[in-house]
Amino acid sequence: NLSAASSCSPAAKLATSTSLIKPHSLAPKRMGSLDTNPMAFSALPNDKAAFEPLNPEDVRAYLHKAVDFISDYYTNVESMPVLPNVKPGYLQDELSASPPTYSAPFDVTMKELRTSVVPGMTHWASPNFFAFFPSTNSAAAIAGDLIASAMNTVGFTWQASPAATEMEVLALDWLAQLLRLPTTFMNRTSTGRGTGGGVILGTTSEAMLVTLVAARDAALRRSGSVGVADLPRLTVYAADQTHSTFFKACRLAGFDPANIRSIPTGSETDYGLDPTKLLEIMQADTDAGLVPTYVCATVGTTSSNAVDPVGAVADVAALFNVWVHVDAAYAGSACICPEFRHHLDGVERVDSISMSPHKWLLTCLDCTCLYVRDAHRLSDSLETNPEYLKNDATDSGEVTDLKDMQVGVGRRFRGLKLWMVMRTYGTAKLQEHIRSDVAMAKMFEDFVRADDRFEVVVPRNFALVCFRIKATGAMTEEDADEANRVLMENLNKTGKAYLAHTVVGDRFVLRFAVGSSLQEERHVRSAWDLIKKTTSSIMD
Amino acid sequence: NLSAASSCSPAAKLATSTSLIKPHSLAPKRMGSLDTNPMAFSALPNDKAAFEPLNPEDVRAYLHKAVDFISDYYTNVESMPVLPNVKPGYLQDELSASPPTYSAPFDVTMKELRTSVVPGMTHWASPNFFAFFPSTNSAAAIAGDLIASAMNTVGFTWQASPAATEMEVLALDWLAQLLRLPTTFMNRTSTGRGTGGGVILGTTSEAMLVTLVAARDAALRRSGSVGVADLPRLTVYAADQTHSTFFKACRLAGFDPANIRSIPTGSETDYGLDPTKLLEIMQADTDAGLVPTYVCATVGTTSSNAVDPVGAVADVAALFNVWVHVDAAYAGSACICPEFRHHLDGVERVDSISMSPHKWLLTCLDCTCLYVRDAHRLSDSLETNPEYLKNDATDSGEVTDLKDMQVGVGRRFRGLKLWMVMRTYGTAKLQEHIRSDVAMAKMFEDFVRADDRFEVVVPRNFALVCFRIKATGAMTEEDADEANRVLMENLNKTGKAYLAHTVVGDRFVLRFAVGSSLQEERHVRSAWDLIKKTTSSIMD
Repeated sequence: NLSAASSCSPAAKLATSTSLIKPHSLAPKRMGSLDTNPMAFSALPNDKAAFEPLNPEDVRAYLHKAVDFISDYYTNVESMPVLPNVKPGYLQDELSASPPTYSAPFDVTMKELRTSVVPGMTHWASPNFFAFFPSTNSAAAIAGDLIASAMNTVGFTWQASPAATEMEVLALDWLAQLLRLPTTFMNRTSTGRGTGGGVILGTTSEAMLVTLVAARDAALRRSGSVGVADLPRLTVYAADQTHSTFFKACRLAGFDPANIRSIPTGSETDYGLDPTKLLEIMQADTDAGLVPTYVCATVGTTSSNAVDPVGAVADVAALFNVWVHVDAAYAGSACICPEFRHHLDGVERVDSISMSPHKWLLTCLDCTCLYVRDAHRLSDSLETNPEYLKNDATDSGEVTDLKDMQVGVGRRFRGLKLWMVMRTYGTAKLQEHIRSDVAMAKMFEDFVRADDRFEVVVPRNFALVCFRIKATGAMTEEDADEANRVLMENLNKTGKAYLAHTVVGDRFVLRFAVGSSLQEERHVRSAWDLIKKTTSSIMD
Repeated sequence: NLSAASSCSPAAKLATSTSLIKPHSLAPKRMGSLDTNPMAFSALPNDKAAFEPLNPEDVRAYLHKAVDFISDYYTNVESMPVLPNVKPGYLQDELSASPPTYSAPFDVTMKELRTSVVPGMTHWASPNFFAFFPSTNSAAAIAGDLIASAMNTVGFTWQASPAATEMEVLALDWLAQLLRLPTTFMNRTSTGRGTGGGVILGTTSEAMLVTLVAARDAALRRSGSVGVADLPRLTVYAADQTHSTFFKACRLAGFDPANIRSIPTGSETDYGLDPTKLLEIMQADTDAGLVPTYVCATVGTTSSNAVDPVGAVADVAALFNVWVHVDAAYAGSACICPEFRHHLDGVERVDSISMSPHKWLLTCLDCTCLYVRDAHRLSDSLETNPEYLKNDATDSGEVTDLKDMQVGVGRRFRGLKLWMVMRTYGTAKLQEHIRSDVAMAKMFEDFVRADDRFEVVVPRNFALVCFRIKATGAMTEEDADEANRVLMENLNKTGKAYLAHTVVGDRFVLRFAVGSSLQEERHVRSAWDLIKKTTSSIMD
């Protein structure tokens, strides 16, 4: 009798010998340890009740504490230094070096969060954060992510959670409509099931990697390669302004580092890819017996928001049967507004496009949307079919198994938060959000242009302003570089603003990225005042 | 004057002409649209206030609704069918095919969640879920994930969020101590900074991929390969019971499919990898001029929880200078209990190990911990250094930039929830959690063994029981396969339990995985009763 075995376990014995035992309704019969180990007893001096990690009332209590923390955090984050003043290793010095043996009230955990962790954060949620690109966010997204964490589905196949898969497909199709992507990228169109498809991944890098692998395998098949024998002949292309993660993804996929072409750009194209150069290089590679395989065009580079001409790149690529991927990680979100959509012109001729709502569409990390014109071209390379995942729905061919469009197998309920954002706020407010950020960036740009100590280095396309103290009088460009470097350091040291930099055309440039979700016009104005004041102090 | 320009925008004009405008304190001066587009006005008929996606009071209200939903969900999920009865495309039929133009109260979103989404979920949180491996969870983990979503840091470098990086390093070092990993895998030891390191990734697949790439590049360097010219000569190894995602990860990294060795196993080793066979195959490959590069040993396979002998595999691999990775995705969590730790014996001689607290350590998705003995061997292949991410802390060499240990650049505040789990519950309760699940599995195993219609197919190592109706009397093994298939289908159709299957030694086998976090002994008993009853109905 196993029930008897259970109640004879050491833990159960101890539990029944104490008056602290919980009433039956609160203490479910989880079995005590049947293994012999002294550690088995170590929980008991502290807490004799059965351990219920998801007790609904504990969940409610813990989460209410977390929610109150968050609401307070948003109220107060404005006054916290954006960039913390901590030394490497500070947290290990503050917190215990080893895990505790015994449990503690959740308040202890929350207290350590407040006193040790928060002071060491770089506050991306601060309205005074202007570095990198903002990680925009919203109440609806956080709620969606919270529910996903709680449901904790692992939707590798449709059957493993139909609603999770279908929600992801639906959210991607909705977003495709917001972006006016051609229906060839959609999973379901008004006339039935489409040939395209999408998947939500963690990062743009993964979107690049899986499409690179699909393009690589297709090129190998076309070349009649035995295995990967022809891999050293395959070449890939991108402008030198393309995010470094692209060049890394190429290496991950096994492309020869010598065959990864970084095409120089300059101010004559506002640092966008020149299709004529692309054509020349692809032709030269072909003439040399190499096999052009993949080109990445960026809409809104990380460095300076340059835009590669999508249609012209696609036209060149078509001559060589090359896979075209569009990386619109940041600026893709702007394309939900008709006035920005032209940056995607020609997208109907590319093979794949990715954009990250976790950057600029009010959806917290991780949320990168990848669309592929022919979903089978991805799954041909990424499909797995182990016995333990086989099921009737997959066999029917009527469902999408999202594991076959990503690196891994497991996956959160990723579509929920993105759907919640669109469902709750609606298209018009999302457009208003983009336009508000762009208007604030334009205001900042006008401030810079009106002050003759500064220059705007590249035309502003979206909500990023690239500017610098310009070399005037006896100041060389190198002097100006140094002045800008000092300006950035001094600004960031104040804790009242955080700006990052880049190098454009060999010049050190400050990046002012508008759009942190708590940001208002007054924060942009204050930052500008601080920049002016700090500049005066270092220029005197 | 830009302030004037702002207040002259169409949106601002409309706002000031209505009595519905919010008081100043609630309606911050976000700029109206300066762009000319009819869509700019579409939000206004509905809501004339400025759009504040992170208004702290909205955040509080939305999240409290989400928390109440979750608490209710946990209370009621037991009574919901574990596996839903929905057809492919059901959700697209229920919800709008296009995103709404106007915003809606959050209650509308929550209502659609309840009425359309929940009925289509496979309820991984149900205590009647026995399929795959459980995705265990806890109040502390969900709270940690929630706070991470709200802070929304993007900790690619240490500087981009010192506390996020240090918390991840700390949590990994804590877990390394729980697992009694050698200090060579730790970032910081009692004697100072270690040479090892860890990173939290989304999936085991990514852990395999990045270590495969590091091993690949090291092998190419050793062979003196020009670029990837020698890639077609590299070989990789794993038992045939290894998760299919390993073989996929090898293909992603560019290994020749013909060089990916799946080594047969059988009942004589309980489906664990035979080191003698491994030695023979590696020697034969070497003799053929190939370059053994990487071997994956699994502790607790997905199919049947087989355990490859880590130390013996490492000894063989050492003869060929081969990278050894240990995939302990599921069973690694059990190794926090001394009585299970022997499954990792020899880990001090491997190069890397990964395990997923999102499987069995009460931490919601995504949370896969990868440890590498020499962290530089990862970052040598994965480092990027674009200008816009350069900073003094990185230049000092004193910090870890976690982007250099993963595929992508961006990353959530991943360490927080894992730390919160260990900090709140403590080692003893986490061990209790593992032991309780194992005890319940043992109880189920004993039920099966006591019923002579069934057999336990492989020895139970952890909390997974692989069993089947056995072929008796006139029944052939094929008849038994079919009976087990029908049993599984009939069980799953009841909605009262969800079991998955596998194939072991060519036989169709049911997998009964204990451990869903709301599970109690009574759920295991009920499932067994249901199995007995359903078996009787199909065997009659």
